[in-house]
Amino acid sequence: MDVTPPTPTEPLIGRTGQEVPDTTRDQLDEILHHAAEAGEQLRSWSRPRRAVLLTALAEALETDPDELIEVAQQETRLETPRLRNEITRTAFQLREFAAAILEGSYLEATIDHAAETAMGPRPDLRRMLVPLGVVAVYSASNFPFAFSVLGGDTASALAAGNAVVVKAHPGHPRTSQIVAARAAQVLDGLGAPPGSLGLVHGFDTGTDLVRHPLVDAAAFTGSVRGGQALARQAAMREDPIPFYGELGSLNPVLVTSHAVEEHAAKFGQGLAKSVLQSGGQLCTKPGLVLVPRGPGGDELIEHIADAIKRADAFPALTESMAGGYAEGAAARSEHSTVIGVGGTASPQQYQPRIVSVVAEDAVGEILSECFGPLAVVVRYSDEEEALSVIRRLEGSLTATFLTGESEDISTSRTYAALSKQVGRVLLNDYPTGVAVSWAQHHGGPSPATNSVHTSVGMTAMRRFLRPMTWQNAPQNLLPQELWDTNTKIPTRIDGQITMPLNR
Amino acid sequence: MDVTPPTPTEPLIGRTGQEVPDTTRDQLDEILHHAAEAGEQLRSWSRPRRAVLLTALAEALETDPDELIEVAQQETRLETPRLRNEITRTAFQLREFAAAILEGSYLEATIDHAAETAMGPRPDLRRMLVPLGVVAVYSASNFPFAFSVLGGDTASALAAGNAVVVKAHPGHPRTSQIVAARAAQVLDGLGAPPGSLGLVHGFDTGTDLVRHPLVDAAAFTGSVRGGQALARQAAMREDPIPFYGELGSLNPVLVTSHAVEEHAAKFGQGLAKSVLQSGGQLCTKPGLVLVPRGPGGDELIEHIADAIKRADAFPALTESMAGGYAEGAAARSEHSTVIGVGGTASPQQYQPRIVSVVAEDAVGEILSECFGPLAVVVRYSDEEEALSVIRRLEGSLTATFLTGESEDISTSRTYAALSKQVGRVLLNDYPTGVAVSWAQHHGGPSPATNSVHTSVGMTAMRRFLRPMTWQNAPQNLLPQELWDTNTKIPTRIDGQITMPLNR
Repeated sequence: MDVTPPTPTEPLIGRTGQEVPDTTRDQLDEILHHAAEAGEQLRSWSRPRRAVLLTALAEALETDPDELIEVAQQETRLETPRLRNEITRTAFQLREFAAAILEGSYLEATIDHAAETAMGPRPDLRRMLVPLGVVAVYSASNFPFAFSVLGGDTASALAAGNAVVVKAHPGHPRTSQIVAARAAQVLDGLGAPPGSLGLVHGFDTGTDLVRHPLVDAAAFTGSVRGGQALARQAAMREDPIPFYGELGSLNPVLVTSHAVEEHAAKFGQGLAKSVLQSGGQLCTKPGLVLVPRGPGGDELIEHIADAIKRADAFPALTESMAGGYAEGAAARSEHSTVIGVGGTASPQQYQPRIVSVVAEDAVGEILSECFGPLAVVVRYSDEEEALSVIRRLEGSLTATFLTGESEDISTSRTYAALSKQVGRVLLNDYPTGVAVSWAQHHGGPSPATNSVHTSVGMTAMRRFLRPMTWQNAPQNLLPQELWDTNTKIPTRIDGQITMPLNR
Repeated sequence: MDVTPPTPTEPLIGRTGQEVPDTTRDQLDEILHHAAEAGEQLRSWSRPRRAVLLTALAEALETDPDELIEVAQQETRLETPRLRNEITRTAFQLREFAAAILEGSYLEATIDHAAETAMGPRPDLRRMLVPLGVVAVYSASNFPFAFSVLGGDTASALAAGNAVVVKAHPGHPRTSQIVAARAAQVLDGLGAPPGSLGLVHGFDTGTDLVRHPLVDAAAFTGSVRGGQALARQAAMREDPIPFYGELGSLNPVLVTSHAVEEHAAKFGQGLAKSVLQSGGQLCTKPGLVLVPRGPGGDELIEHIADAIKRADAFPALTESMAGGYAEGAAARSEHSTVIGVGGTASPQQYQPRIVSVVAEDAVGEILSECFGPLAVVVRYSDEEEALSVIRRLEGSLTATFLTGESEDISTSRTYAALSKQVGRVLLNDYPTGVAVSWAQHHGGPSPATNSVHTSVGMTAMRRFLRPMTWQNAPQNLLPQELWDTNTKIPTRIDGQITMPLNR
């Protein structure tokens, strides 16, 4: 998502000029001990009580948002309307998870009564998902609210009944502090244990966190390099823990020849808008656009180039990211034709850019994500040539197909090949703007994510739960959700899903 | 499950005296290329077609079982009735997965229609789980059928729509060959691509397999050491793949003072039977029994000891495992009191054994799994002492509580502590004999398993699926299960689970 990992030398100074010091090892240890105790207590909270907590956290974000926006704006340079929207999104997520835990199907409650089977007698077995304990959440640079302290990972981990320790992103430490302080007040007011939500700072602290024996799972949004390093730390532990990384993504777009004949202007403008959205600092930014050779394709590219040229430079989230973008843009321009560059950039800004290559030159770095408002157009002459490029791509979060109105691509080889490499396929739509819903999936083959799970949408909760089965257990040992008399949540009974109303 | 990993020097000679050579690198490469192609084709098979395939595989196992049993008996020395049962179990599993794919809820079909939301307009989003491609399955020593070529891992991977490459266990290479040959005939007869089910042999081949770029996930049943080594290989790949390991498990049992007062004889005999089942070569063998000090506990232990002393020696699965057991038993006897030893053992046999220590001496190796018919009794004087032992335990598949008839342990600290360390809790029952059903879970915190997933029961399928979302896609691009007109499987529509009959 963010290709510039925080480096050990990057000072933890928000743009407000106020330094937030690194968390020491002793502090981390103390925070995690509190978190482990909190996890114990939260595990036994009822679902309605957790739903109240999530809703109150949403309200705390939406009360006096201007204070939050002001600090976040200073730290991230993201625009005020975007930040306001992000707070709305973050609160929306918290409320959606509250609704999901009340609905209860996420528990996968399952009851197999004792029975005779083809394998002989079967005991009474009851299964549901239970929280893991303590979840470490690594904040993203580009979403100071929606993928940070109270973002989707924290919301889904809390919803599932875990305690959370957040590693703040160095790009917005004070925003993180303020959000954490608001959350602490809510948690305290509702009687949640003090360790329910911890916040830590510092690069080394991040490494110590994923290695810490009291951490049961980790969720990371950031660079491929940083994410892979942490994933390996998680895997090399004596007790390996699940590590859910949302890393880089190129998000290829295939434009068909019918599409450019019918909608060169519409698709060209739409693509440019998607590339430029939030300064290109989105994990679903379309970074590669396969466009057919010929006049139709030329026309589409002109529309993209026009929009890019008219765009202003964007302030980068951090200075080092601006530098990373400048380098990435220069490298991608070296072996390609630069066909559009936006407004003059200062050293702290991104200059929007679009470059073009022919299919046979689309190799190496040009096929990797460049975080920021840059897209690479690859011109192809036929399906075979498009396929040869697709085969050189790594996994992405999304693949977008822009087609003619009545065109059927279901049997095309490019559709088959490209859809396999991603977690979400879009038809005549744009990949930026990721709706939060049950059917959403935000993940894809490596390096887009390092697991098959999602970090957006309701099923994100499942990352922080594990199955637990009770055999021959009396009612007093079972969670209420597994009692025979509990008819309030969807439950699979003797193999059949049974809905609350039908029981 | 099996603490003696195959070593590179272990000759691949089944006890029938017929050598099965190692798979070469070139052969492995060829097998995986066929598997990848098969995975492509199987992905588009309808669910009913896959169900027919699984059912036919079950039938192929049950036709002339004596041929299979004879070879398996020669190779594993497991008794004929046990092997006959195991074939029944393996066929049962295949049929249960066939039923599960017809029922279809495993796909998690989800439709969110385009709508206005608090976050603005939401596009049409449709999600379901799709196969990964090629799954590597590592066979177990102790289940030549149920956790080998056509065992639970293969059945769940095929059910999910993947191709499978099985790494045969060196303890039963010929059984593996014969089962694979029967499967190949079935697959061919039903028009499945030739690479749908591959079989490979050799220690190095196993390492190459998990590293191979064409493998998308791996499932392993075996030793902690072997499993952890392969898990790290999977994690260190350039594109890390999911690795589902079912490794060692101690399966602690807590006997309360009420239990020994009321049922010393019944529980003592039951525990001994569970320890001795299949020569103690089961991953759910109860390996540690916490027994209260005092006359009631003494009586229970006498009943265990009596049964152990009366038991014959068991032929070990392999000679090296017999050696491993003898060493493990000797080490555990050094700092404990040996209270019962079964019949005289030859070098290829396990001698059943039960040893006892006081709580404060229950440290180190004595708290680790010893694969074979050995159990360690730990005597405790009060809850605090029992807790101190529990806190020293690693994760297990199961925890068993043997209690008085009307005893309520729901608020006991020992229940809270021990149930957290496992994936299945049993009350007044025994952990061996793992029913195959929807509510089953066979997994537990590390080192029992290295992930939160299960390898027994219907949810085992989920290990080999990944989510995929279609945004704004016309019907011809969607799998049939996501069509608006498909009302045949449970589907979450706009957030609500909708059952076939209600639509």
